[in-house]
Amino acid sequence: MGVVIPLEDKNRNTASIKPLVDLTKPDMGRVNQLILEKAGSDVEMIPEVANHLISSGGKRLRPMLTLAAASMFGYEGDGHVKLATSVEFMHTATLLHDDVVDESDLRRGKSTARMIWGNQASVLVGDFLLGQAFKMMVDVGSLDALDVLSTAASIIAEGEVLQLSVAGNMETTEDDYLAVIRAKTAALFSAAAEVGPIIAGASKADRDALRSYGTNLGLAFQLVDDVLDYGGKAQDLGKNVGDDFREGKITLPVVLSYRRGDDNDRAFWRSAIEEGNNDEAALETALALIAKSNALNDTITRAEHYGAIARDALAPLADTPAKAAMLEVIDFCIDRIN
Amino acid sequence: MGVVIPLEDKNRNTASIKPLVDLTKPDMGRVNQLILEKAGSDVEMIPEVANHLISSGGKRLRPMLTLAAASMFGYEGDGHVKLATSVEFMHTATLLHDDVVDESDLRRGKSTARMIWGNQASVLVGDFLLGQAFKMMVDVGSLDALDVLSTAASIIAEGEVLQLSVAGNMETTEDDYLAVIRAKTAALFSAAAEVGPIIAGASKADRDALRSYGTNLGLAFQLVDDVLDYGGKAQDLGKNVGDDFREGKITLPVVLSYRRGDDNDRAFWRSAIEEGNNDEAALETALALIAKSNALNDTITRAEHYGAIARDALAPLADTPAKAAMLEVIDFCIDRIN
Repeated sequence: MGVVIPLEDKNRNTASIKPLVDLTKPDMGRVNQLILEKAGSDVEMIPEVANHLISSGGKRLRPMLTLAAASMFGYEGDGHVKLATSVEFMHTATLLHDDVVDESDLRRGKSTARMIWGNQASVLVGDFLLGQAFKMMVDVGSLDALDVLSTAASIIAEGEVLQLSVAGNMETTEDDYLAVIRAKTAALFSAAAEVGPIIAGASKADRDALRSYGTNLGLAFQLVDDVLDYGGKAQDLGKNVGDDFREGKITLPVVLSYRRGDDNDRAFWRSAIEEGNNDEAALETALALIAKSNALNDTITRAEHYGAIARDALAPLADTPAKAAMLEVIDFCIDRIN
Repeated sequence: MGVVIPLEDKNRNTASIKPLVDLTKPDMGRVNQLILEKAGSDVEMIPEVANHLISSGGKRLRPMLTLAAASMFGYEGDGHVKLATSVEFMHTATLLHDDVVDESDLRRGKSTARMIWGNQASVLVGDFLLGQAFKMMVDVGSLDALDVLSTAASIIAEGEVLQLSVAGNMETTEDDYLAVIRAKTAALFSAAAEVGPIIAGASKADRDALRSYGTNLGLAFQLVDDVLDYGGKAQDLGKNVGDDFREGKITLPVVLSYRRGDDNDRAFWRSAIEEGNNDEAALETALALIAKSNALNDTITRAEHYGAIARDALAPLADTPAKAAMLEVIDFCIDRIN
């Protein structure tokens, strides 16, 4: 697919994830080791399936957030490594189940586990990783962290079900859609960030700040992901332009393009999303309508709004390398577009 | 299906679950209320799917075990109600995922959730219930109970994957099969029983006793379930004779019949289980081979062996109404056959 919708140049220096990667490097080494260890099992199929996804080159942004958030408040134990690993396992379990739910063939440019080992193994290995995640949290022994992460697990599943029920309904409002991504994406970012101050014994205000940072970073991250599916450098990220479209997914660019369109445009979107008329010609039309409605640039503007809230959430905190790295990650998530 | 394999009369008075039901009645009222409350969500599909299965008339044996085991050691708080509800949610989540994995159409004589709402909702509502289960455990605040239950969650999933990998392999030994049911069934019975003494602050010896009771009761329970699928009063329990056979499931009656058979018998089993030649005529043959090999009676004898271990596990404990009820449940699980 060569269609890339040109985006406004926001004239910002490109932000990087590198400061966060450097800051968390030693601890991430331990996280990566623990991931391999805890995805292990005498039942051979489990490490095979788990490692297929685990080794497929995700950025591991969520566990890095946990580690950075703990270091921000001077945490010196090693519970943060277990919590970060738990967070990544929760994420991996969600991806395994998502691929079954969405009937996806590809993730990050590789065949999904369900295409290789079947839906059965994807469901069950997801369950296993979730169980292992909870065991590690219990090992750490912080009931507050357990509360935050188990609540997130419920909310994520609730968000996925909510997404099912808005699926194929073009009358979905921006608020409806935000409720979905707040639950299915932002809740885990939020929990990943909040367990840092929790385990470090930081104040309630600090917990609140990190939770707000995580939530809003997660919203910005998901909105930019939605944009990447219709343009930007999607190809480089192992995504194909139009994957969401072909799966009939409602995302913010689609919501905006539908609501801003004329009767013909809306008829097109209903036919494409509600009736599944989503071949390559339809994708070309979709891209043209999205361009006409300026939906991608405005989705990015919305993402920037949540990015700004995330930034202000951290504003009162002392300037530390961790804070600087976490602030830069906000811009990095948004700048992935360019 | 009118085929019922006659079983030896063991000349035992029929044991009842009634003492356990009576003992736990007030607390089970609270469990049932909490089940409804915690299966609730603003996302409408969640209580719909959850209540479909929850209201389908399971015995709720596992939560009753938790309540009885807590009362056995004089527990007077109300954490046992939350733990019992967590145990039932873990069980319900497993059933929802199992039906997807096994592609089952019926459970307890009703359409499975996946047949009504699809695999997607079954996977996700299972995840939601698991999340709610962990939240309730965290609420109770016992790290030891959390450890036991989260370990069980991992083991159950591991057992389900193990079952996948032995599926369709007629060389599966009795030991292989026991490893599967030890993980997928007995682990939750074991955890359900052990969290009783944990929350009551009982001794390690008491915990060990209840864990052993739960494990062995679970093994006996599953083996009798396997027998019921080929005879006994399966129809009354909302099961159809031959469901396991039609799904190509390897259970102990099949393992025994295969190993005890001659070359022709073994060729039949391989064709039926490994190649899926499992029509009604094949079922008739299977029932005849199982009868010839005495596999059902011997599976019941195996179940009685585990029942005896469960009984001895409780032997050193003081005689209480809870102990009497839990002992009678062992016989009840086995006597379901008659």
